[in-house]
Amino acid sequence: MKGTLKALPNRRSDCPLACGLEILGDKWTLVVIRDLFFGKSRYNAFLESPEGITTNILANRLKQLERRGLIERRLYQKNPPRYEYRLTQTGKDLYPVIREIVAWSLKYIPRTRPPGVFK
Amino acid sequence: MKGTLKALPNRRSDCPLACGLEILGDKWTLVVIRDLFFGKSRYNAFLESPEGITTNILANRLKQLERRGLIERRLYQKNPPRYEYRLTQTGKDLYPVIREIVAWSLKYIPRTRPPGVFK
Repeated sequence: MKGTLKALPNRRSDCPLACGLEILGDKWTLVVIRDLFFGKSRYNAFLESPEGITTNILANRLKQLERRGLIERRLYQKNPPRYEYRLTQTGKDLYPVIREIVAWSLKYIPRTRPPGVFK
Repeated sequence: MKGTLKALPNRRSDCPLACGLEILGDKWTLVVIRDLFFGKSRYNAFLESPEGITTNILANRLKQLERRGLIERRLYQKNPPRYEYRLTQTGKDLYPVIREIVAWSLKYIPRTRPPGVFK
C-alpha cells in the first residue's frame, strides 16, 4: 500500500519532489541517515561523526525521522534509558537518493572522498 | 577534470554527501532546478510554480546556483534588464538525484502525483 508516511501537514504542493524535500531538504537529515547506513545506531556515535552535529539538531532529527517512520528506536538500557536506532524499510529505500548525491558530488565538488574513507 | 565547482568554504567534512548537502540541502534549491528541467527559464515563471516561492528566496537561490556553476544566465532584454536562466551540464547532472527523490516520495508519501501533472 502506498503511503507509509503520515500526510505532510505543511505540504507546498502535491509534487513528489517538493514533498520529499519537506522531509529530506535540510543539511542534516540525510547525514544522520548516512550514519545509520554505516551501522551507527547510538546517540553518541552520531555525535562523533566528523560533521559535528549538535545534540539539539540530532535529537530533533531522530524524533522527526521516528515520527515519520523512517527509523525505529529500541530501548537497550533501562537506567538511565538509552535507545538505539535503525532504519525501517522506508528509510533504507533512501539509499538511491544518497547514492546519486554522492556520485554528483564526487564528480563536481573538489576534495570530496568516496564514502567509507571520510573518517 | 573533476571539480567544476568552487571549493566549499564552510564544508563540514570531505564526505561527498555532506558536501552535496551544503549546496542542495534545503527546501527550495531542487525545486528551482526541477522548474528548469521543466523548461522554465524566467523569473516570473518560477514565481508561478504552485509551491509559492518568494522573490527573496528565488533571487537568493538563482544567485547561489549561478555562482556555483549549476546554472547560467543570459540577458534577453536591456531596458529594464531581464535575464533568463538555464542549467549547465553540472546542473543537468542532478537529474538522477531528483529522479530518486521523486521515486521515493511517490512510493511513500500519500497524495503525491507524478511530476508533470502537478500544475
